Amino acid sequence: MKAIHVTDERTLELQETDTPILKDGEVLVRVRVAGVNRADLLQAAGHYPPPAGESEILGLECAGVIEDPGTTGRKAGEKVACLLAGGGYAEFVAVPEGQLMPIPEGYSFAEAAAVVEVATTVWSNIGMLTGLEAGQTILIHGGAGGIGTFAIQMAKHVGATVAVTAGSAEKLAACKALGADILINYREEDFAEILKNKCDRILDIMGAKYLPGNVKALATGGHQVTIGLQGGVKGELNIGLLLAKRGTISATALRSRDRADKARIVASTVENIWPLLEDGTITHQIHATLPLSDAQRAHDMLKAGEVTGKVVLLIDA
Amino acid sequence: MKAIHVTDERTLELQETDTPILKDGEVLVRVRVAGVNRADLLQAAGHYPPPAGESEILGLECAGVIEDPGTTGRKAGEKVACLLAGGGYAEFVAVPEGQLMPIPEGYSFAEAAAVVEVATTVWSNIGMLTGLEAGQTILIHGGAGGIGTFAIQMAKHVGATVAVTAGSAEKLAACKALGADILINYREEDFAEILKNKCDRILDIMGAKYLPGNVKALATGGHQVTIGLQGGVKGELNIGLLLAKRGTISATALRSRDRADKARIVASTVENIWPLLEDGTITHQIHATLPLSDAQRAHDMLKAGEVTGKVVLLIDA
Repeated sequence: MKAIHVTDERTLELQETDTPILKDGEVLVRVRVAGVNRADLLQAAGHYPPPAGESEILGLECAGVIEDPGTTGRKAGEKVACLLAGGGYAEFVAVPEGQLMPIPEGYSFAEAAAVVEVATTVWSNIGMLTGLEAGQTILIHGGAGGIGTFAIQMAKHVGATVAVTAGSAEKLAACKALGADILINYREEDFAEILKNKCDRILDIMGAKYLPGNVKALATGGHQVTIGLQGGVKGELNIGLLLAKRGTISATALRSRDRADKARIVASTVENIWPLLEDGTITHQIHATLPLSDAQRAHDMLKAGEVTGKVVLLIDA
Repeated sequence: MKAIHVTDERTLELQETDTPILKDGEVLVRVRVAGVNRADLLQAAGHYPPPAGESEILGLECAGVIEDPGTTGRKAGEKVACLLAGGGYAEFVAVPEGQLMPIPEGYSFAEAAAVVEVATTVWSNIGMLTGLEAGQTILIHGGAGGIGTFAIQMAKHVGATVAVTAGSAEKLAACKALGADILINYREEDFAEILKNKCDRILDIMGAKYLPGNVKALATGGHQVTIGLQGGVKGELNIGLLLAKRGTISATALRSRDRADKARIVASTVENIWPLLEDGTITHQIHATLPLSDAQRAHDMLKAGEVTGKVVLLIDA
């Protein structure tokens, strides 16, 4: 089969390679569309190796058609979206059955491939881990990004008050259009002062840099979950202040989870989020659709930082 | 009624004061025995004021008899143990109904008064918050203390592997006698190195000082809960390492919770822990029983640090 290979010069090239051999409980999926994630850029640069035993090929999400159901009870020809530990930038990928999702009704392969990572990430953290409820206030850092825009819509659907940070008036306007209630330009304002003791939940992508501010912003019983480390890894924690608030800080990742854990998250995401995609409660955006052979260009677009929405790769273009 | 008063010189004196006036949902309890806690020493020193609207009198736990059921459906004469926001060092105390517990079968008033704070603290943190399960490993810092000895027995009952830290061979031997599996003298050994990546749960009383070591000791999906700050309040958190482990850090306190929250904890503690007290699965120790008028001497004993087990105050001695 054809798949994207990372050359010694850290560039992406379409090459011929072996089709994956199925293990017990896996299906072979003919990939139609693969989603591109920032984590793929890290992996291509050599900084984010796949978990032990998983495909070395890039690609954490895709949509396609079951080619070989292996030992599972699935049917060849079934259309599926897939959460992957790797392997999406290819004509075929082996997928554990627990990581298969139906294509949301009315969705194209491209729309489905584009939503897998963001939906499972947002739901597993805000929904499953922190249990966001109506009437609570959630702070979403990076509100205008892919995770942020999805999280705003989910949180508004739950009935929460949504505060966001972003770096420009345009980005904040985009957040507002999706329902965000409190808009903070982090270049001009101090989010921790504005939201002091007010945030029941915080979805954080900054890590160390925002730790003191986030703890200040937490409300009594508040729960921060960090899913990105754009502001570094080592920071100061005032655990006395955290105790006074009876607060919790979690930090999570999706790719390193074992298959049982991923299956649990995938099932809960389909149950709770798929209906919201199908009825249009939560929308998301595709910025560009490129052929698989243009994977390098897709990465260059993300690096340039001017992408609003998802970039996806078409395998049968 | 008679109650302990903190003088301007920060000493404890038995004085005449007003009997509490009941609010809706409260019962008046004639106190027979009040437990002494380290937090009482802090409050006497002026560092730990009671929550707004609660009694200024010392005392976070007691056992006694209902004198006046107020607006509740309780009966006068009923024997009860009580979780208090304050007021235990007195002849009478007003107690919200949700903070009343039965006296464990076979328990004296003294034994009941001595177990309320430790039982609710250990169960609300290890049981309700972190959900300790059989097969998991829990690290209990200060294993030989009141919280530690109770936590060891509860964790062993659940079926966990128990690691403890303590500062002497004698203290570690006491932990071993209660079932602790891994004994670490923190004066001689590095707990974080010994338990690196092994701890599913950590019950911490040190706060800032142990934060780096605790994160190092956490296993994948591990959960640390800090309930004491003996090692300071500001420490370094490697949130990158926490993310790699998908770990969680909570910090909690009991006294500052609202009445609904306390009622929830009290009910769950009675349901889950009382049977273990009644059948002897969990034991605890009374070090000394003093008359209420000797409250100052009780505090001096705790300050001197030579107490093994609980000090309680007899009101009708």
